[in-house]
Amino acid sequence: MDMHDLTRNLQTKNDSKIVMIVADGLGGLPMMPGGLTELETAQTPNLNALAARGVQGGSIPVKPGIAPGSGPGHLGLFGYDPLEYVIGRGALEATGIGFELGPKDVAIRGNFCTLGPDGKITDRRAGRISSEESAPLAVKLREVKIPGVEVFVEPVKEHRFVVVLRGEGLGGDVHDTDPQTTGVPPLKPKASKHGSEKTAEVAAEFVTQATKLLAGQPKANGLTLRGFSPRPALPSYDEVYGLKAAAIAVYPMYKGLARLVGMDIVGKAQTLDEQITVMEENWSKYDFFFLHFKYTDSTGEDGNFAAKVKRIEELDAVMPRVTKLNPTVLIVTGDHSTPSFLKSHSWHPVPTLLVSDCCRFDGSTEFSERASRIGGLSQFEAKYLMLLALSNAGRFGKYGA
Amino acid sequence: MDMHDLTRNLQTKNDSKIVMIVADGLGGLPMMPGGLTELETAQTPNLNALAARGVQGGSIPVKPGIAPGSGPGHLGLFGYDPLEYVIGRGALEATGIGFELGPKDVAIRGNFCTLGPDGKITDRRAGRISSEESAPLAVKLREVKIPGVEVFVEPVKEHRFVVVLRGEGLGGDVHDTDPQTTGVPPLKPKASKHGSEKTAEVAAEFVTQATKLLAGQPKANGLTLRGFSPRPALPSYDEVYGLKAAAIAVYPMYKGLARLVGMDIVGKAQTLDEQITVMEENWSKYDFFFLHFKYTDSTGEDGNFAAKVKRIEELDAVMPRVTKLNPTVLIVTGDHSTPSFLKSHSWHPVPTLLVSDCCRFDGSTEFSERASRIGGLSQFEAKYLMLLALSNAGRFGKYGA
Repeated sequence: MDMHDLTRNLQTKNDSKIVMIVADGLGGLPMMPGGLTELETAQTPNLNALAARGVQGGSIPVKPGIAPGSGPGHLGLFGYDPLEYVIGRGALEATGIGFELGPKDVAIRGNFCTLGPDGKITDRRAGRISSEESAPLAVKLREVKIPGVEVFVEPVKEHRFVVVLRGEGLGGDVHDTDPQTTGVPPLKPKASKHGSEKTAEVAAEFVTQATKLLAGQPKANGLTLRGFSPRPALPSYDEVYGLKAAAIAVYPMYKGLARLVGMDIVGKAQTLDEQITVMEENWSKYDFFFLHFKYTDSTGEDGNFAAKVKRIEELDAVMPRVTKLNPTVLIVTGDHSTPSFLKSHSWHPVPTLLVSDCCRFDGSTEFSERASRIGGLSQFEAKYLMLLALSNAGRFGKYGA
Repeated sequence: MDMHDLTRNLQTKNDSKIVMIVADGLGGLPMMPGGLTELETAQTPNLNALAARGVQGGSIPVKPGIAPGSGPGHLGLFGYDPLEYVIGRGALEATGIGFELGPKDVAIRGNFCTLGPDGKITDRRAGRISSEESAPLAVKLREVKIPGVEVFVEPVKEHRFVVVLRGEGLGGDVHDTDPQTTGVPPLKPKASKHGSEKTAEVAAEFVTQATKLLAGQPKANGLTLRGFSPRPALPSYDEVYGLKAAAIAVYPMYKGLARLVGMDIVGKAQTLDEQITVMEENWSKYDFFFLHFKYTDSTGEDGNFAAKVKRIEELDAVMPRVTKLNPTVLIVTGDHSTPSFLKSHSWHPVPTLLVSDCCRFDGSTEFSERASRIGGLSQFEAKYLMLLALSNAGRFGKYGA
């Protein structure tokens, strides 16, 4: 039985409130053997007080040893098996810039490239063109007109942009046109499966018109297309869990991921304090709140241990405002670890804290990697966290008689 | 998504070195409640020092409660799901005696039996014939000649031998001819699936000729055939992990298992010290070293607690030579537990130690069952160990964007 078949069957409604705070890249490493992690170093009196009445464990984002990107990292926390639900590169890119994909859309990641006079690629990244130079070119590509298909083009960063094709009968199975090398022309768009032939034709027409629009550009006079993908077919929170869910995030990527599972994006907060205010203001309207805090990841990516410690302390400081709302279930976790030591996402289990009246607290006195290692939740795959959230909220009946 | 699809996609190359030391049957039990296990009893200063900068956990060979044989035990450690990849009995028997199976081979386990004058089986194990008596008979069966098929016969032990048929169009799906009872004749070889009819015919011809060659033997005048199996189709280490791998083992079974996943068998070591020397000599040539130490299992099987303790100390003594090589990732584990108390393989999680710069060490001060129980790797299925090895070696990109 699929996990969501189970949740569809077991879900019951009540007036409980579940809060999931995702501190992106929360887990860490010491900078030297015998040292403390970022979370262990931070002064976190409020999180520690919650640990004393909660239960901890280590969340494995995908499988042991697998470091995820933001997409699979969040899908796991949301209860969608990240190996089963795969978001295509185009769809993730569109999601990341806040483009709301519809059911008739195919999203594509576009790359500007430099073509020689013979039409062969001389630079796959258009001479590392700056965003300032490339953005107007992406906007210019909106002039492409294809009968029966709406075409959207959005700048991303440097040589990258997003194309979304919207129309009837567009499949997402088209090969990349990037030949992954120079000295050859871009490949022609070609369907990899039956049902995507129209997409390939439309993409070919897009390339023809776009190349004309780019003619004469010194760097970006050509383009390649990658990661053709439809809107991912994710069942909604409402359907699988019976939860009316709100997402409170600052960055478009996380709003986008939340939207894919049917959460409402609420507020326009730019700071953590404002995010909490949005939660307070919307408290009565939702059953579930996903709050995303970005900076524990970005500081880790920068390898800035001290800055990550400080961001964790910033998170700790707002916890009294969250507990004051008296959520039935409060979860603090991360979508993966981002140790400053590695300056990248990692596979290490993420310290995860769950507080509820019936959580079987484990006697921890701090929230940390070392406490979560011996905590009552043990190590578990992230995809099971929502099951624990719902049961602790009294929102599950029992399985079988 | 299959685990190996994941590793194929995520693998990256670098110049890291991974060492996996498999102390066969490492895990144990105390001889009485409240006592210590073999590993906890042994004096292991070097392993304990490694534990102080490593991370530990309990490796579950197959699933909780399942005690594996050597085949599934090692497949798990090598990262091949032992419930998905099944090595047929014939193939395992051939592997165990060092017979190198080829792609056109079908391996069969043969049993000598005693037939009455009416051709019915009177003893399924040929009166528990000794190896000294049976080996020449197995060699005699090499006289069997079948047009278009090469026939290999190898003695094993007591009433057992191996037959390998090599030729075009031989399938491995043939029913056993052992009726599992006496008072009836051996069954005729019969294909269980389309495509193995030729194998059944060849096997029938083998039985006819072999029975003539055995005529007049007092004990072993007949034979049955079991476990028809082709060479297992295991993808190689090179393909799924991008690793050039070496196996350093003394016993044919473990060399054979390593060969099945594409490892090179290096050296002709007969002792543990010689095995380490082989590793030193081949250090620059490989990315991955599998070193197999047999005697922690055989002493456990004998129920000799003290001898197993001593063998563990023998392993501990060579560890400085291993650490001197400065492997990027060093793993010490076992393919299963073999508690002296049980005198057999068991299902208990196997203490497993992983040491790397980024392993998130867990503050253990000893390598043992009790330390691994609260270690940072928690309990995990053996099949995930290679994922941890590769990520700790920096040989994985991240999954999804």
